[in-house]
Amino acid sequence: MQNSFNSSPAPSPLAMVPFVSVAHMMQLIHAKGLANTIREIAAYIEADFARWPAFDKSPRAAAHSTDGVIELMPTSDGETYGFKYVNGHPANMARGFQTVTAFGVLSRVDTGYPVLLSEMTLLTALRTAATSALAAKHLAPPGAAVMAMIGSGAQCEFQALAFKELVGIATVRLFDVDPCAVQKAAANLEHSGLRVEACSSAQEAVLGADIITTCTADKQYATILTDNMVGGGVHINAIGGDCPGKTELHKDILLRSSIFVEYTPQTRIEGEIQQLNDEQYAERPITELWEVVSGQVSGRSSASEITLFDSVGFAIEDFSALRYVRDQLPGYPFYTQLDMLADPDDPRDLFGMVQRAGRAA
Amino acid sequence: MQNSFNSSPAPSPLAMVPFVSVAHMMQLIHAKGLANTIREIAAYIEADFARWPAFDKSPRAAAHSTDGVIELMPTSDGETYGFKYVNGHPANMARGFQTVTAFGVLSRVDTGYPVLLSEMTLLTALRTAATSALAAKHLAPPGAAVMAMIGSGAQCEFQALAFKELVGIATVRLFDVDPCAVQKAAANLEHSGLRVEACSSAQEAVLGADIITTCTADKQYATILTDNMVGGGVHINAIGGDCPGKTELHKDILLRSSIFVEYTPQTRIEGEIQQLNDEQYAERPITELWEVVSGQVSGRSSASEITLFDSVGFAIEDFSALRYVRDQLPGYPFYTQLDMLADPDDPRDLFGMVQRAGRAA
Repeated sequence: MQNSFNSSPAPSPLAMVPFVSVAHMMQLIHAKGLANTIREIAAYIEADFARWPAFDKSPRAAAHSTDGVIELMPTSDGETYGFKYVNGHPANMARGFQTVTAFGVLSRVDTGYPVLLSEMTLLTALRTAATSALAAKHLAPPGAAVMAMIGSGAQCEFQALAFKELVGIATVRLFDVDPCAVQKAAANLEHSGLRVEACSSAQEAVLGADIITTCTADKQYATILTDNMVGGGVHINAIGGDCPGKTELHKDILLRSSIFVEYTPQTRIEGEIQQLNDEQYAERPITELWEVVSGQVSGRSSASEITLFDSVGFAIEDFSALRYVRDQLPGYPFYTQLDMLADPDDPRDLFGMVQRAGRAA
Repeated sequence: MQNSFNSSPAPSPLAMVPFVSVAHMMQLIHAKGLANTIREIAAYIEADFARWPAFDKSPRAAAHSTDGVIELMPTSDGETYGFKYVNGHPANMARGFQTVTAFGVLSRVDTGYPVLLSEMTLLTALRTAATSALAAKHLAPPGAAVMAMIGSGAQCEFQALAFKELVGIATVRLFDVDPCAVQKAAANLEHSGLRVEACSSAQEAVLGADIITTCTADKQYATILTDNMVGGGVHINAIGGDCPGKTELHKDILLRSSIFVEYTPQTRIEGEIQQLNDEQYAERPITELWEVVSGQVSGRSSASEITLFDSVGFAIEDFSALRYVRDQLPGYPFYTQLDMLADPDDPRDLFGMVQRAGRAA
């Protein structure tokens, strides 16, 4: 406890929460290197997936509107609590706003005090790419070198870089309904070490691809991939279908695939598998990724198997990413302290703190 | 859209969120006056209670642990979305931490972008006091002049001041199991214009009181008021029983009272009425406060009626309080801008933004 309010209005250390802004996050990324940051975040996610049963798996609290959705995604490992605020507004892009923005908080479970507030628009892009690549590391065909990417939005280049770093992808084949988006992604990836091929259709992009990533943003049932476009042995990384009513794959693809998800109850509502009727759902083998990561279940079992990572994003990935950022702060002090918590001399004396601050002012 | 990242790393206005720190909140309170601030917040709550059906009433997302609880409380009126992060850790006080700390966010529903981040440890104290006094304005016996306050913790003086300001209370009679807490509250209220009487028992405090406020913090079933302590005609403002397993009143009091709550489904789980069995619950008339505020239902109906406001706190009160703070910012610019949202030149070009920021640095 501090006596600060008797003498000056400077808050005590107990009242302060480190805040990592967007600019700070970019500083951290550049200090560590983008590919390296994604690799390190993937290691945090892998470690947390390996202790999956330790986590509270609450459903996210979603507020849907005609324009989009605002979600709160909490979780806890019993020692640390984290949540992410994230919006998804497909119409934002046309208005000059981001489709997805986010921020997050880590707290101590024993006191309930926040210990980190961080931007998560960038961090979500990193953790999503890290999770996708982590899944592919376990599920993609060995030696996978070519990835098709359908959708060249905000996620695209992060995915490409993550798959180069963690899976060894050498070539990305890009398609988007908007050629400008492809141009943008190709230009951004120019010095990435990846061979980048701009394609004029999804069909063309998937030709010869070992991995197909779908990351489009329409808030509706769409068919980005039809059944005939998916040959045996590929790994599909489906990340764009992530809320009720929003899918990317033709249902027949699901019926031929070994399906891997983050957390079945959530993916059943939000992911590609929302398309399955109860009977089909009961028949398909659906594996949670943590079971593969922890070694309890094997991933890909044959060269001809189609593996599908039906990804919707889960709170534990955000928790891992926030945990990563928190652990970097001592060595990479890119943050400011926010006076976010009241800390009176006597915890019962909130009123007195206000009075004394008034007198000091 | 801004081109800022091509030339300098300064973020655009779209990326910024006003942040009201604890120090800012104290500045606002002193600029407006504490009693006046509570009165104005009560007016915002009253206005929102009057349009209650317009709000989304999601359950709060609570993470319980042996030490306490961390909750996210979201709501929306279709135009603006708000949520509060709040913890409740009864053991914190002994460790020099606040039992309750909080912060909150308001966002635009159409874009999902946050427009305010504010401390809410102080603001929660203000809105809780404002809500209690608002309820009493409608429910307490006319001419109520004496209030007993059982519990002299962080809420105590705010309640006292709110009841003076909105209900016309002239005397508060304080009791706490810890005499130091009573001393603290009495000293803080010395120049408030209230007559303050320190009492040596709850029994003594309630003698002759028109209103009884219970605001203790034990996380357990407790009996702060027994049935014989409550005479006809009083108004009980029960704010300390606010989570499962935590109550303050003997059950028999409930069976003699007209019960008013914020939101029945939540109070049934968290409030005093969790003590009623299904049969008792079905028999008791339970009224939601907004029905009284909006004039659909009358409040107190006789001089001998015992009215009970079984308060647990609801997300709409926090929404009102955040809305109030947001509306003050133009005239009382006590805030800083936080670079919390990524705002690339092209919303799809998050990756390019990171790259260019790296080159600039």
